[in-house]
Amino acid sequence: MTAADERPTYPPELRTLLDGRWRHIRDLAREQLRGERFAPVADLSTEEHRERVLGQLKTIAATEMSSYGFSADYGGQDDVGGSVVAFEMLVCDLSLMVKVGVQWGLFGGAIQALGTQRHHAAYLHRLMSLDLPGCFAMTETGHGSDVQGLRTTAEYDPGTEEFVVTTPDEAARKDYIGNAARDGRMAVVFARLITQGTDHGVHALLVPIRTADDSPAPGVRIGDCGRKAGLNGVDNGRLWFDGVRVPREALLNRYGDVAPDGTYSSPIESDNRRFFTMLGTLVRGRISVAGGAGSATKAALAIAVKYAQVRRQFDRPDTGEEVALLDYRAHQRRLLPALARTYALHFAQEELVGTLHERHSGEPAGDERGQRELEARAAGLKALATWHATDTIQTCREACGGAGYLEENRLPQLKADTDVFTTFEGDNTVLLQLVARGLITNYRQEFGELDPLGMARFAAGQFLGAVIERTAARSLIERLVSAAPGRGDESDLYDRGWQLELLEDREKHVLDGLARRLRRAGSSGSEAFDAFNDAQDHVLAAGRAHMERVVLEAFVAAIDRCTDQETRRLLDRVCDLFVLSAVEEDRAWFLEHERLTATRAKTVTQQVNRLCAELRPHAEALVDTFGFPDEWLAAPIALGAEAERRREQRAAAQG
Amino acid sequence: MTAADERPTYPPELRTLLDGRWRHIRDLAREQLRGERFAPVADLSTEEHRERVLGQLKTIAATEMSSYGFSADYGGQDDVGGSVVAFEMLVCDLSLMVKVGVQWGLFGGAIQALGTQRHHAAYLHRLMSLDLPGCFAMTETGHGSDVQGLRTTAEYDPGTEEFVVTTPDEAARKDYIGNAARDGRMAVVFARLITQGTDHGVHALLVPIRTADDSPAPGVRIGDCGRKAGLNGVDNGRLWFDGVRVPREALLNRYGDVAPDGTYSSPIESDNRRFFTMLGTLVRGRISVAGGAGSATKAALAIAVKYAQVRRQFDRPDTGEEVALLDYRAHQRRLLPALARTYALHFAQEELVGTLHERHSGEPAGDERGQRELEARAAGLKALATWHATDTIQTCREACGGAGYLEENRLPQLKADTDVFTTFEGDNTVLLQLVARGLITNYRQEFGELDPLGMARFAAGQFLGAVIERTAARSLIERLVSAAPGRGDESDLYDRGWQLELLEDREKHVLDGLARRLRRAGSSGSEAFDAFNDAQDHVLAAGRAHMERVVLEAFVAAIDRCTDQETRRLLDRVCDLFVLSAVEEDRAWFLEHERLTATRAKTVTQQVNRLCAELRPHAEALVDTFGFPDEWLAAPIALGAEAERRREQRAAAQG
Repeated sequence: MTAADERPTYPPELRTLLDGRWRHIRDLAREQLRGERFAPVADLSTEEHRERVLGQLKTIAATEMSSYGFSADYGGQDDVGGSVVAFEMLVCDLSLMVKVGVQWGLFGGAIQALGTQRHHAAYLHRLMSLDLPGCFAMTETGHGSDVQGLRTTAEYDPGTEEFVVTTPDEAARKDYIGNAARDGRMAVVFARLITQGTDHGVHALLVPIRTADDSPAPGVRIGDCGRKAGLNGVDNGRLWFDGVRVPREALLNRYGDVAPDGTYSSPIESDNRRFFTMLGTLVRGRISVAGGAGSATKAALAIAVKYAQVRRQFDRPDTGEEVALLDYRAHQRRLLPALARTYALHFAQEELVGTLHERHSGEPAGDERGQRELEARAAGLKALATWHATDTIQTCREACGGAGYLEENRLPQLKADTDVFTTFEGDNTVLLQLVARGLITNYRQEFGELDPLGMARFAAGQFLGAVIERTAARSLIERLVSAAPGRGDESDLYDRGWQLELLEDREKHVLDGLARRLRRAGSSGSEAFDAFNDAQDHVLAAGRAHMERVVLEAFVAAIDRCTDQETRRLLDRVCDLFVLSAVEEDRAWFLEHERLTATRAKTVTQQVNRLCAELRPHAEALVDTFGFPDEWLAAPIALGAEAERRREQRAAAQG
Repeated sequence: MTAADERPTYPPELRTLLDGRWRHIRDLAREQLRGERFAPVADLSTEEHRERVLGQLKTIAATEMSSYGFSADYGGQDDVGGSVVAFEMLVCDLSLMVKVGVQWGLFGGAIQALGTQRHHAAYLHRLMSLDLPGCFAMTETGHGSDVQGLRTTAEYDPGTEEFVVTTPDEAARKDYIGNAARDGRMAVVFARLITQGTDHGVHALLVPIRTADDSPAPGVRIGDCGRKAGLNGVDNGRLWFDGVRVPREALLNRYGDVAPDGTYSSPIESDNRRFFTMLGTLVRGRISVAGGAGSATKAALAIAVKYAQVRRQFDRPDTGEEVALLDYRAHQRRLLPALARTYALHFAQEELVGTLHERHSGEPAGDERGQRELEARAAGLKALATWHATDTIQTCREACGGAGYLEENRLPQLKADTDVFTTFEGDNTVLLQLVARGLITNYRQEFGELDPLGMARFAAGQFLGAVIERTAARSLIERLVSAAPGRGDESDLYDRGWQLELLEDREKHVLDGLARRLRRAGSSGSEAFDAFNDAQDHVLAAGRAHMERVVLEAFVAAIDRCTDQETRRLLDRVCDLFVLSAVEEDRAWFLEHERLTATRAKTVTQQVNRLCAELRPHAEALVDTFGFPDEWLAAPIALGAEAERRREQRAAAQG
């Protein structure tokens, strides 16, 4: 009997449901990203790893996977959702995932979204084919989270009709820029546009950074960020510009342009609003990172669950047989609630990608509020999904013991590579505050940075109480919530309406309380800042509460799409485990606010234990359904090595 | 003004208190581990890193640091406590720390503790000088946590007066063995001793594994564990023995011997008890790991706090000045409670090292109960300290954003290196269960494995209720607790007696409840296992509650030793933050068990916020007091690079 024979089967509809709308792209990735070229390899030097990933990138450039996100007019496929899903399938090496993201998501995506026809015609073909490898040069050493604080300048010179790009000092050098240290030829550079003596705020321009012979372009200095914790297949670097001249047409001019004489024009009057509109078009990056984090989490769970299924330690006193790790309640508790949350986040991601796709296919819809809501949700899901990845992959490493520490078993690489996901494309702590701001202002506030004074004023003047807007399967959820039994010890913990109502109620209460605190802050900037700062844990809690409710709604909607009864029953239990373990984790809040009695809170803990026991036999099927080929998991402990040793041990003991 | 000028001073007594009884050893390490030889280096290949660490080890072998743990009769210093403190000071590279631990702690320590005069005379000098590099070959691929399940055999052959050492199958190969892959010449091999047809359980023997020309000794096969997440300067390997013959005298025979004719003898009759007595002599390993985890945590916090002190992001709306990260409440919340806990664990570690030193200096005391208590406390502190390291270093990485992801800033290496600390020298989950077992049986149970049936029987028959035994400053703590105000909303959250009583009360309640659950389990092995398994989260909570109380007592005792009033006041606040953030984290429990009202629980959260604000100005002084030289921290962002960039930015903005 081989390890493969021991695998339980899973309901086929579960895979169909998980693969979702872009299942053809998932299947394509499963077929194409195979063989030696895409196998994970441990212990490469930085240079070897970069070389390998560039080779993989070239292979992908030759497939349709490089073209999903671009205009059909220029050889693309106008499939924004598909581009996110394709990105998320690159689990064989997350360096490749990120390099793909840099080239076709960030660099290509910025040209597509911020450029106009002249840029599309000149560059889209070349960048899809990798004839033009490029960078997205936004972050500076001195300003990462606070993008409006960027200090690189692009000053227009009407005499030559050129922009002069300058790094004023060391803090303004571009930093952590993917593709910069080795492969990039051109960069989308974010810089303050200055013309006729006026600073119009941050805009993006195309700046060549390397010549055909691979030396830095004149006036450009290039540094290497060196070794990182992970993602060493990506060549992150630094860029300095010393009065680099680029033609007027290098400006990505969809949202702001400069006439030959230096006159500035823009369809959006306010600098602030224009800047955030530009950033908003790049929302796909955050959604992609959330998806990538999800994939890494799934891979880690697949490895840890499969190992725990065959790994045995300590005898049962009654049988004398060693006990499989996954039969220990403590082990179930580490892995199964995390697995349930991974399912929940998967469905929320699918929902979000769908919304992105509808909104960003062709010309974006004019509905600004919807766009801001999408941005907030992308920020929130990115934060939740990447923190979940960090926690879960860590847990999986520990759950595999010493074997989990060996590179060959992939967990170290998954951990090290994803570690920066909580930081890049927006620091999670900043992102959750963005979510809270959107909620407090009901997405109506003028675009702007996280200004405590603005929030305090809004809370004082216009906030009329938190509004719960359902984000998925609205009428179903409405129905479930209205049918929910009232509060109190009698109602069923497994009632979906009660669960939904519990999370809605928490969100509403946290948000209303936050608004009250901000309102009391007074109206001076100093008081507003201090009040906001004092309430920062409250702000983060508001963002988190909102997102957990949104995630639950997506899970409920997914179960509703499911027509197979067996699959539905299984998913119902997974959803219960997600909700009840989330409630258990935050039960202090529910107790403090008298949403749960002490007795009921203890019952929640008991039921989480019960659900762990109940789902334990399905654990391997639940990770198999992710559909990662063995060669992507690549960890011997998850693919038969441990099972084989057990058999040898049994044979030796009997012989 | 340079960065050094900006550093606040700290009360000198704080350093004295932290450095403690072995301060001369800490100072020696600060002086000696300097210069290029000990500077952290990023991006080494596995082979380069191993070579570098071996070189460092040789340098240390030439100092007194290699000799603390060994008998003065053979050139050692009989300073067990000193050996732990010296180990913990090796923060410049944790690979070096672990390699030192393998050579002089595990390999040398086993010969010292389990061997007799003939082994000491033959090997102690040679191993101290590194003339004899060695391994500690306990763990097998198939059995890590369950050491009693080891399956390597050492069968005595009276014909030749030799032991024959054999690896029966792949699951029984020795695995993760430090010093095995490259440098070790000899190994202390743990194997089942079989003589005259009887298996006497696991014993330790000295087995040469490499010849003088570095090839494997006859019958020994050596493998390489390859690349790991971290600690790649340590050459972990695998060992297989194919009927390897060693003389009768190779047996480390302090606790069990075989006469030339094959007759087995031991001062301890029970196999089980003998095995755990042998393991108990190796308790120093776990204590060392707890200390090493503490050092890594301190280094990470020093880097993150120093960066947060100078790094600024987003303007204050009132002043227009950018705000230092450490002024954000969310940032304080991430770093300062972790810093307070680091102090608490430091004092608990100091206390534990003292106890170890008293007990293991010269001949160990006969008091078995005290020994078992020491072992339980070592297990518990190792679990708490290493999980705290994992959490805190992760948080520090995130708190430093993209800069924290660069190798040059050391956090990636600290994270990757310490990641396995929660696993090696005993998996934390297993260790906390060991603590709970000791508590339930009040350390009176026969030594033995974690047998649920035994625990259930003991709980049913002999457990008379949890007993709180104070572990430090007994009379002071007694006094504080009796003077504590009663429960209820009125008492002062800052009253130390109340805090102590709160943690004692939790421990007692959790333990009594656990005993009740086990008692109800019934008396069959199967029922006992299931009941124990169902209660596993309760078991872990009991271990944790006990250890937090012990840690608090050590903190209180340390403050009591402090004579400087200013230092005392500062430490009192740090201790408050430790306790109140621990209570906040577990407030769900206190609410569920009516130890805190909802109002009071919310007050705890407010007070944690207040304490964060209050300690913020002292944060840098608190990390400076750890006394790590700049060249050990080695992270540019913590040593002036960021401050320098800020100055340039200000100058450019003004210019």
